[in-house]
Amino acid sequence: MALKAVDINCDMGEAFGRWSIGDARDSAIMGLISSANIATGFHAGDPNLMDDTVRLAVQHGVGIGAHPGYRDLQGFGRRKIAGSAKELVNDVVYQVGALREFARRHGASIQHVKPHGALYMEMAVNAELSGVFVDYMRQAAPGSFVFCMSGSATDVAARAAGQPVVREFYVDRDYDDTGSIVFVRDATRPDPSALAEKALRACVDGKVRTITGNDLDVEFESLCIHSDTPGAEAILTRTREALVGAGIRIAPVSELVPA
Amino acid sequence: MALKAVDINCDMGEAFGRWSIGDARDSAIMGLISSANIATGFHAGDPNLMDDTVRLAVQHGVGIGAHPGYRDLQGFGRRKIAGSAKELVNDVVYQVGALREFARRHGASIQHVKPHGALYMEMAVNAELSGVFVDYMRQAAPGSFVFCMSGSATDVAARAAGQPVVREFYVDRDYDDTGSIVFVRDATRPDPSALAEKALRACVDGKVRTITGNDLDVEFESLCIHSDTPGAEAILTRTREALVGAGIRIAPVSELVPA
Amino acid sequence: MALKAVDINCDMGEAFGRWSIGDARDSAIMGLISSANIATGFHAGDPNLMDDTVRLAVQHGVGIGAHPGYRDLQGFGRRKIAGSAKELVNDVVYQVGALREFARRHGASIQHVKPHGALYMEMAVNAELSGVFVDYMRQAAPGSFVFCMSGSATDVAARAAGQPVVREFYVDRDYDDTGSIVFVRDATRPDPSALAEKALRACVDGKVRTITGNDLDVEFESLCIHSDTPGAEAILTRTREALVGAGIRIAPVSELVPA
Amino acid sequence: MALKAVDINCDMGEAFGRWSIGDARDSAIMGLISSANIATGFHAGDPNLMDDTVRLAVQHGVGIGAHPGYRDLQGFGRRKIAGSAKELVNDVVYQVGALREFARRHGASIQHVKPHGALYMEMAVNAELSGVFVDYMRQAAPGSFVFCMSGSATDVAARAAGQPVVREFYVDRDYDDTGSIVFVRDATRPDPSALAEKALRACVDGKVRTITGNDLDVEFESLCIHSDTPGAEAILTRTREALVGAGIRIAPVSELVPA
Repeated sequence: MALKAVDINCDMGEAFGRWSIGDARDSAIMGLISSANIATGFHAGDPNLMDDTVRLAVQHGVGIGAHPGYRDLQGFGRRKIAGSAKELVNDVVYQVGALREFARRHGASIQHVKPHGALYMEMAVNAELSGVFVDYMRQAAPGSFVFCMSGSATDVAARAAGQPVVREFYVDRDYDDTGSIVFVRDATRPDPSALAEKALRACVDGKVRTITGNDLDVEFESLCIHSDTPGAEAILTRTREALVGAGIRIAPVSELVPA
Repeated sequence: MALKAVDINCDMGEAFGRWSIGDARDSAIMGLISSANIATGFHAGDPNLMDDTVRLAVQHGVGIGAHPGYRDLQGFGRRKIAGSAKELVNDVVYQVGALREFARRHGASIQHVKPHGALYMEMAVNAELSGVFVDYMRQAAPGSFVFCMSGSATDVAARAAGQPVVREFYVDRDYDDTGSIVFVRDATRPDPSALAEKALRACVDGKVRTITGNDLDVEFESLCIHSDTPGAEAILTRTREALVGAGIRIAPVSELVPA
Repeated sequence: MALKAVDINCDMGEAFGRWSIGDARDSAIMGLISSANIATGFHAGDPNLMDDTVRLAVQHGVGIGAHPGYRDLQGFGRRKIAGSAKELVNDVVYQVGALREFARRHGASIQHVKPHGALYMEMAVNAELSGVFVDYMRQAAPGSFVFCMSGSATDVAARAAGQPVVREFYVDRDYDDTGSIVFVRDATRPDPSALAEKALRACVDGKVRTITGNDLDVEFESLCIHSDTPGAEAILTRTREALVGAGIRIAPVSELVPA
Repeated sequence: MALKAVDINCDMGEAFGRWSIGDARDSAIMGLISSANIATGFHAGDPNLMDDTVRLAVQHGVGIGAHPGYRDLQGFGRRKIAGSAKELVNDVVYQVGALREFARRHGASIQHVKPHGALYMEMAVNAELSGVFVDYMRQAAPGSFVFCMSGSATDVAARAAGQPVVREFYVDRDYDDTGSIVFVRDATRPDPSALAEKALRACVDGKVRTITGNDLDVEFESLCIHSDTPGAEAILTRTREALVGAGIRIAPVSELVPA
């Protein structure tokens, strides 16, 4: 595909109360990305942190995204909860609205919505859930982007309904030959330079090496790097350097995808 | 004062999950009021119920209000939590935004904000807290009404800032000689006709009999009746009959107070 | 099987904070049963209610059981949460301990543990989860009974480990031909006399009519009737009358199963 | 007073879910103390962490204490909640029971109970609350120690009832002339050697220098050092070195106070 410009998104504001997570500082990360997925209180984040994180995003001119998750603080939204499509989307509506109000307070608006963790994964394979979610977006946020994986049920539902979509490439996750993400717990600390090369190749050649050693075609408009990946700041810095060195611009999604 | 028209507000959507509270049915109450204070999830209410309650309010043409409380489901928001003004107002921002999103989904907007229970009482006497709350309203909801007691710190702060205010008279609560509400736990079931007479006298003469038997002057634009007061439906029905019989119209607050 | 005596168990203390559920009164139900499954705060119940319910059980001489569920107040523990066996059993340990402390405070002890709702159903088919749960029971509660369905993974794991088991028959639920419970939402109000007959037949003949009209063999030591089933008090009263009339005694599980 | 032996207590297990707090590692701290106050889930801690922390305490031979707090994860139990004595103590019962079950699972028992944060502070000045708490301890945990400040309402109530008491000296907190703790937010990182000297002087001379420069008499059996104080490991190491160098033994509270 040979991208000339790409968005970089990162999960932000994922602490809670007096607790922290990961070794990255949001204040440093925010200067390195173009889209922030801000936790909205059900899996992480709290009203104080949401206010601070929205302010930080506004200061850096970073696109504000709602990052709603399952209502499961203890499990950080990484455990599926067997709710109906209707009730899970009501949870999403609640959370997006909460974040939107902080954006409004700071004179900003919501650029995108990206479900978190297990909810993102469930939507990717659940057409009914993605359908109800997209229905809500059409009603209440028709101009906001849905972040998802290319070819997922979410991608299909959003395109069918005319909702603008941004597809992601996961820089700090491994792919299998089906294009699915492979979660490796307690992995070794990743090498920032290797990940930067991986990101660059995906942008230039549209390909990623899978865990079985094959090449897979990938299509995306945004690079996702997780703030709780060890060394996230270094990964982001190296990735930006690699992209800029290759003449690829970091750009807001509004320049990459028609709303 | 001899009111020609008055608003009637009631707390709505105060169940949670599979649980219920009080003996009143929201579907019946909604047809008897002009403003609904809809619970926003911290002290009561959940996303499914918020969606249903907003839909019900829209169907009945009732003004939609956010009813944010302390984050205390077990205590139903009736226990003060010693948070800072900043963090408590961030909780309010979060909750108002959540409700506003459901309103947006149903093509409606937020008419007013009325803090719940102990948070309402704390704001009434806490100038700093009311100040931060009103600052937020000015920034994010300048056209929405603040519901409060006449002469409270919230009333003072809102008026000073130019935020539109609706003052309440509590039909189903007792007053002492200072104008404060006296909470009586496990009270006997109130007599609907007596409360309707009390409401009518307040509207016509601007007076209420206090618990010590004196008359107190009251000023208000809205009558508040609680949906979890035993016999709430009958109280509302009798009150409406009394008002209509005296030529007093039930009207939305937008007709009573300039926004 | 022709039982000479049987236990009757019922979920108790399933309100939360100021909310209630169902039309049954725990104070009336407690006089009609021999085992109480007391909610422990994750799906229902709160510390105040747990204290009151344990006191009530002690006053009535009813066996005290812990009724731990998924951490999901909004979903009432009826939605599966995809946690690991280890973390789900840690949730059970926490909840059983909490209830045991209230029992200790009232000079009583824990007779049994019965997981609630979706957790009960998950354990029934998940051998790993039942195994970790039974390991905990062997370590910390070797003399307490595990309530489960005959032939479930929980039944198998408990018997293999030597943990005492009480098997249940669901009076107010329908069975299919595999012996599984069929949940019917928004069912019509059940007929207490018909359910009493169903219970009696199960006790006398060891059989139940399935939803497809066949007869299924059932083995159990306890009859389960849910307190949130409409008409629970009448169902319990009719069932007791039917049993007593047929010479079947209501007895504590300690008389029915060796500990 | 010139102590020959002293206990050292520290709050442990105060992370939550995937989040962490402070820079100290519980695994390192546990080797430096004789009593662990283990968070019980309402202000911090979760069932998985409670299980791990109890196991760690057992491995190190450290006394296991329940550290119950207000139900306020976001506020870390540092905000007073205006609950009744009865309901707050029910919250304590619930939490102590939960921890006790993990101890039981690991073949251990509860050595002590120390309320956390704002609940500890409220008990210190609230005779009714301390009274209901001590009543519960007499009923359900008569042999367990209550940790509190000398002369506090908790100290008075426990002694009057015959419940064994351990009084604390706060190594990493400042005292005013009344003996109250002075909280300083965002304080500079404390000097471990200075705090070790402060602890030694308190043990040898029974005195502490207040924030106004006066000397105050202090009586205690246990030194408290907070695991979330920056440099907690170094503070504990220096303090132990200072005590041992002066011939003062670190001892379990059961050797210091008759149960």
